[in-house]
Amino acid sequence: MKLIIADSLNKFYIKELYKIEKKLSLLLKGKKPDSLYDACRYSLESGGKRLRPMLVLLSAKAVGGNCNQVYHAALAVELLHTFTLVHDDIMDNSPKRRGKETVYKKFDNNTAILAGDSLAALAFETLLKDCNKKSKEVISSFTKGLITVCEGQGLDKEFELKEEVSLKQYKEMIYKKTAALMEMCCNISALLCNAKKIHIDFITGFGKNLGMAFQIQDDLLDIIGQENEFGKVIGCDLIEGKKTFLLIKAMNKADAEEKKALLKLIRSKGIERSEVGFYLKLYSDLGIIKDAKKEIIRYTDLALSNLNKLPETEGRNLLVALAKSLVVRSK
Amino acid sequence: MKLIIADSLNKFYIKELYKIEKKLSLLLKGKKPDSLYDACRYSLESGGKRLRPMLVLLSAKAVGGNCNQVYHAALAVELLHTFTLVHDDIMDNSPKRRGKETVYKKFDNNTAILAGDSLAALAFETLLKDCNKKSKEVISSFTKGLITVCEGQGLDKEFELKEEVSLKQYKEMIYKKTAALMEMCCNISALLCNAKKIHIDFITGFGKNLGMAFQIQDDLLDIIGQENEFGKVIGCDLIEGKKTFLLIKAMNKADAEEKKALLKLIRSKGIERSEVGFYLKLYSDLGIIKDAKKEIIRYTDLALSNLNKLPETEGRNLLVALAKSLVVRSK
Repeated sequence: MKLIIADSLNKFYIKELYKIEKKLSLLLKGKKPDSLYDACRYSLESGGKRLRPMLVLLSAKAVGGNCNQVYHAALAVELLHTFTLVHDDIMDNSPKRRGKETVYKKFDNNTAILAGDSLAALAFETLLKDCNKKSKEVISSFTKGLITVCEGQGLDKEFELKEEVSLKQYKEMIYKKTAALMEMCCNISALLCNAKKIHIDFITGFGKNLGMAFQIQDDLLDIIGQENEFGKVIGCDLIEGKKTFLLIKAMNKADAEEKKALLKLIRSKGIERSEVGFYLKLYSDLGIIKDAKKEIIRYTDLALSNLNKLPETEGRNLLVALAKSLVVRSK
Repeated sequence: MKLIIADSLNKFYIKELYKIEKKLSLLLKGKKPDSLYDACRYSLESGGKRLRPMLVLLSAKAVGGNCNQVYHAALAVELLHTFTLVHDDIMDNSPKRRGKETVYKKFDNNTAILAGDSLAALAFETLLKDCNKKSKEVISSFTKGLITVCEGQGLDKEFELKEEVSLKQYKEMIYKKTAALMEMCCNISALLCNAKKIHIDFITGFGKNLGMAFQIQDDLLDIIGQENEFGKVIGCDLIEGKKTFLLIKAMNKADAEEKKALLKLIRSKGIERSEVGFYLKLYSDLGIIKDAKKEIIRYTDLALSNLNKLPETEGRNLLVALAKSLVVRSK
């Protein structure tokens, strides 16, 4: 059974990914001025997973709607997500994303700022095409997602300057920076499909918890993922001194000696590549990897328990498969 | 009669300015994280004219509505306008605005990028509070305004790299960068007041033409304005080599010798302060100042002829006074 579900998810994903890529590339075709839209077009040719559009499409199916009711919304959330990446890359000084130069590196800072702004605006324009009676609710939810993402990025940048961040503060940050947008994807999709209030709540709860699991998994992948052809390096977050779930959990569990080593990493805002091994061993000694896996499973279970309250449909089964596939993903 | 109208405009402006300032300051009160919202709050304490909110309020009155129907919209357009200023100041490397440090100077680039993003998002959130049945049309118009402003800024940056810009290209740029937003202010206000289609068209045409006049006046003020306590310097645009109405018109009218001097300014991307006098004399010899004044009056007349098609109301009279006061403003 599991395999069949995974198989049909795969089929759905491939089919819809093709459509989404095509629609995204048509969206900005021929738009002028090139000095602005070339950077927008470049940012959208990312080769990303398009996870957020998929959440929109599948949520529609899971609440009894269909993909055609929410295609523009699916594109809109990808535009909004891309906007956040373009601006975050400037702020984080990240030269590469998925093996490609980031927008500000490929073009320049000014172009990246303006391209990001335009992507956000285009996201609203695109979303409006799917809106009808519920426009106000849908746009409100979308806007709330955008505001929350900005606050999340603000907190993330604040944490860079802080020595100690509590697990509660960390969770607030990843909720705002990552989970709120995934929550919104499910929410607007259900709103657009005119789902029952209670079903909207379930699918929204699913998106939120999936987002939390997704981000902690992302933190974990930094140290258990595979180094790959795109130049991904194990322990990047350690090298950059990022306040991840792992680091915060380690700070909580460390004895005096271990805490000293962790504080050294935090105070010097990261470590040398040669020191990564030492910290990986420390994480492992403290059982941090196990803790992260447990937390990911906890949030995934919460997500699934929300889903299970919906009537069983093909859409719901596909979302279950999607949630499970995210837990075992390696990138 | 003229004086009475100007007087009542003055009364209206003072009363409403106070309310707008108060509402703007309440809007972000207590919002966290401070690292983000302090910069937003700072950017809104600008001491600006709040021209765009006034356009929203007066347009409502001019189409038979009232201010209470559009207060949030008035705040929303100021938030949106402020967002564009915050990002433009980064792109233009402007250290000061109205005598105060710009946001990126006072804080830093990253904070200014994120504060700008948040202001744009908050603009949508605030606008939604005035939306009811026509949300889709209102948000569409607002979004179109935002996209157009981004394109305008893109064109403006493109022009910095171009040797020759035609008057037609210049007008497209200022329409997009300045007039489209003022057009939108009038448009959403009339939509929110459920005005007749034909009245919406008239008030929108008014806003567009007023915006064109406003921007050319802005170009003109750079060389005929008064140096003031805020450190405003006559001929800033010349010093920075900006492609203004004056420079483009001068290029069109110059003989071979004069053109050489203008090309020198363009190619060296501006001039020394000591050279300003030479170019002011050149503009004056070519009759450029007269040309600019004529163009400003032409657009103002177009704006007023749109207004005159509306039924006479207090709101319409106040807008007439506002348009006339903008033509004679000195800052």
